[in-house]
Amino acid sequence: MPKVRLALAQTNPTVGALEANVEAILATVANAAAGGADVVVFGEMVVTGYPIEDLATRESFVSKSEAAVLQLAKSLVSLGFGEISVIVGHPSKARKRGWAIAHNSISVLRGGEIIGQYHKHHLPNYSVFDEYRNFVAGDKLLTFEHGGLKFATVICEDIWQSGGPVAEISKSGANVTLVINGSPFEIDKDDRRLQLVQELARTHKTPTAYVNLVGGQDDLVFDGDSLMVDASGDVIGRCAQFEQDLLFIDFENGSVSQAGAHPIVKKDDLWQTWNALTLGLRDYCDKNGFKSVVLGLSGGIDSAVCAALAADALGGENVFGVSMPSVYSSDHSKSDAEDLASRLGANYRTQPIADMVRAFEENLELGGVASENLQARVRGVILMGISNAEGHLTLTTGNKTELAVGYSTIYGDSVGGFAPIKDVEKTLVWRLAQWRNEQAERDGETPPIPESSITKPPSAELRPGQVDQDSLPPYDLLDAILEGYVARRLSVAELVATGFEEDTVRRITTLVDRAEWKRRQGAIGPKITGMAFGRDRRLPITNKHKE
Amino acid sequence: MPKVRLALAQTNPTVGALEANVEAILATVANAAAGGADVVVFGEMVVTGYPIEDLATRESFVSKSEAAVLQLAKSLVSLGFGEISVIVGHPSKARKRGWAIAHNSISVLRGGEIIGQYHKHHLPNYSVFDEYRNFVAGDKLLTFEHGGLKFATVICEDIWQSGGPVAEISKSGANVTLVINGSPFEIDKDDRRLQLVQELARTHKTPTAYVNLVGGQDDLVFDGDSLMVDASGDVIGRCAQFEQDLLFIDFENGSVSQAGAHPIVKKDDLWQTWNALTLGLRDYCDKNGFKSVVLGLSGGIDSAVCAALAADALGGENVFGVSMPSVYSSDHSKSDAEDLASRLGANYRTQPIADMVRAFEENLELGGVASENLQARVRGVILMGISNAEGHLTLTTGNKTELAVGYSTIYGDSVGGFAPIKDVEKTLVWRLAQWRNEQAERDGETPPIPESSITKPPSAELRPGQVDQDSLPPYDLLDAILEGYVARRLSVAELVATGFEEDTVRRITTLVDRAEWKRRQGAIGPKITGMAFGRDRRLPITNKHKE
Repeated sequence: MPKVRLALAQTNPTVGALEANVEAILATVANAAAGGADVVVFGEMVVTGYPIEDLATRESFVSKSEAAVLQLAKSLVSLGFGEISVIVGHPSKARKRGWAIAHNSISVLRGGEIIGQYHKHHLPNYSVFDEYRNFVAGDKLLTFEHGGLKFATVICEDIWQSGGPVAEISKSGANVTLVINGSPFEIDKDDRRLQLVQELARTHKTPTAYVNLVGGQDDLVFDGDSLMVDASGDVIGRCAQFEQDLLFIDFENGSVSQAGAHPIVKKDDLWQTWNALTLGLRDYCDKNGFKSVVLGLSGGIDSAVCAALAADALGGENVFGVSMPSVYSSDHSKSDAEDLASRLGANYRTQPIADMVRAFEENLELGGVASENLQARVRGVILMGISNAEGHLTLTTGNKTELAVGYSTIYGDSVGGFAPIKDVEKTLVWRLAQWRNEQAERDGETPPIPESSITKPPSAELRPGQVDQDSLPPYDLLDAILEGYVARRLSVAELVATGFEEDTVRRITTLVDRAEWKRRQGAIGPKITGMAFGRDRRLPITNKHKE
Repeated sequence: MPKVRLALAQTNPTVGALEANVEAILATVANAAAGGADVVVFGEMVVTGYPIEDLATRESFVSKSEAAVLQLAKSLVSLGFGEISVIVGHPSKARKRGWAIAHNSISVLRGGEIIGQYHKHHLPNYSVFDEYRNFVAGDKLLTFEHGGLKFATVICEDIWQSGGPVAEISKSGANVTLVINGSPFEIDKDDRRLQLVQELARTHKTPTAYVNLVGGQDDLVFDGDSLMVDASGDVIGRCAQFEQDLLFIDFENGSVSQAGAHPIVKKDDLWQTWNALTLGLRDYCDKNGFKSVVLGLSGGIDSAVCAALAADALGGENVFGVSMPSVYSSDHSKSDAEDLASRLGANYRTQPIADMVRAFEENLELGGVASENLQARVRGVILMGISNAEGHLTLTTGNKTELAVGYSTIYGDSVGGFAPIKDVEKTLVWRLAQWRNEQAERDGETPPIPESSITKPPSAELRPGQVDQDSLPPYDLLDAILEGYVARRLSVAELVATGFEEDTVRRITTLVDRAEWKRRQGAIGPKITGMAFGRDRRLPITNKHKE
């Protein structure tokens, strides 16, 4: 039996950009062909981007997607790649139709034709996924032959649930299993994926390829990390995380091996998290036509980390920082902000808010929280004004802890189209800042974040001498309670049973419940945990339940 | 066989308010008992309110709901209602568990016990519903006997899909079918419901009761309209729409009849729509602890209709209108706003924005759209300041047409916790205004909306002499294209084929696509159509697809 070379193509499609996605597939097949590939396998819905959400219910979108696949098949032939088997994901029209009208499909292209199709069986409809809403389930395994090898194909969730076509792989006589995926990043998820792929390979005694997408799409970041295991589950090759990649695997005389050098370098969680956040922000900008961002720089840790992420994503010259001091702003808030901008090579300007705040105060009678909110809202108006006038995307710098307890001013510091650290709890913001500075030191570069922004007590600086801990418990305690209440869905009683003080728990959970209306109006931002605010956690605003 | 009296209990529970909901059930059973009822049937999830969304995935919430049902069963006995069969809906723990851990259930309570349980089989997961996400399906019909009659029970979606336990009703030997529902209002949906119930009754040759909830829950409004048909599908009795109600039905010697007078008065679509909007707003306030609302009064039709709805919902004395004229504001914008407030008996104040706008303009260099947005944002800051200082809920007055094309300033006129006419297209806003004024005239009252607000050309008044039609097609054309693109999901090609001009269609659909990020940050508001922005239509922000 001749050698068969498989290429795992880890690419970054854009939702709805059918032509550009097809062009990118063709370019990747050309690279794979140059590397001697016989079979090239792409990620889930690579033709349309993923997830397409309710676009899947638009007749014209599904038609155009199918037409793009046929066009792709023809273009492959005319470019001289007609003998390669190319496996792509896309929506296809279903015969059974209700709200959903399409399957989530695989097409195997060869010789200008679709030589086989598979429709995803298990449709995830939990966490951020709404696939039972948007797709019709398929129920038949697909196998196809190439060079004497028999390949079986399945899609993503099919290997996370038991039963369905995946159970038929051994019986089908397949020699290789191809799993195509759109699996978003979560801290620690890479290990779970590997285990699943290993189990699958061992169960069906087939070498198994796991091909994931890479790139940001709204609040999801696909991290890639595509991989190949042999029939015993041993890792044969692994793609990079957070970048496009192409991995070649050879099948010859019943053995499977990596073709060419492709070192596997797994990085730690902080590296992964930083890179997920950077990629999520970069792709949101790239795919939505923004070249630059504007954000308020308070001298605090949140805006510093957001600015550093933006500089890593877009280059410091495309980051526009604005210091907006009030009468309550400390000197260090201004000097730390300026220091940060200079470390990042970012643009920097100062716009004091006193004149505008005074104009409102002279016209309206506001006190207490209304007066504190006013300062934040004047800053929001300034940032949006700059954004409108200069065309930058506005970043909002709130972290997950703030969002959880509603420690922010709606239409104030929450303004913006993207929230880079929306899913990063406060204690992790600090760890990321330290990690990023250490990384810079290891690389012989200037640490981007001023030390004082990391070490000083956090403060909103909306009244004299205010610090966050005036109104909130210490952040390590707060984050621990939030982890239990939000991520693990524990009740007050259960949290108290694990050792937290009841009053504190009740205070925090009440704040979380009350902030639901604000979160609903918040910007999207990259999900990095198993329970991000947004599509992961869908609770009513009107909700009298007290845990 | 003795006479059996059935009571259809159409009530308004609040999500999460377990104790209050149980109290309300007990009070309703007491009323039903006083009217001689033997069997009392409530709506879907009456114990917890509906929809509970991801609360269904919280272990503690499901446990407390089940405990509340058992407590209810005991309380019924201690209040002397132990011989009545009481049918209530609630979540119950499922044996099979994944993301979802609960069934959407019916319990039949009698003698202090649960004498039977049914678990919803068809879990709607389209439109605004996420039940496949949140519930585990049941698959067995429940029947129970009372007074020699055999009752079968099913839940809502079970009768909208074919197959499942509902198909077993005839075989089960049931004499009466009880369908309990949480079916939100949409214009025209009442007719479709009636047809379904009639078909069900005829298919299984059983008199059939359809019991719906009533009340507002976030963006849904349950309109009630519970009804009873006989085995031939003829309507025997029908509850009021948009209010709580109790309908008695007698079964005697094989015949079914209404007990006592309960006239069926069906009202037209505009009446229904106005009442849906009023109830949605009133319940959002009541259930979230707001006694009053604040909104900007521009003299235009949108704010006038919102203020009139608020006055109908909460009383004019609880409506706080603010006129915020700029240098571009016409005289009529102020006089019409004042006239409106006086007609409604609403509170009224004027807060010119010139000082604040000037303070920003002197500090920032803004022109064009940035300058127009600035005016809207200064107004937003004023409204939120008043809301924070005085405790009113801020209403945002944008209509569905504006939301569709993004004809609004984010963090400006879009600020607010509730959007009363979010799902009302501009042409319907005018029709509702006219209808409400005519209604007032019929009732011998002052028409609430100044005639000039209805007749003048709509304008945002953000620059001299501006009218909406400078930048948008005429509203009747715009609404017709939006109906095709948004509600009917037609493509540009399909819209052009129906006779619209291609340039106009492309311009409008592009505006709709580009405004997705703004809509995501918008306030919730009552759904009245089959395709409301929000949970009905879930599209990516990052989306390069052009129809």
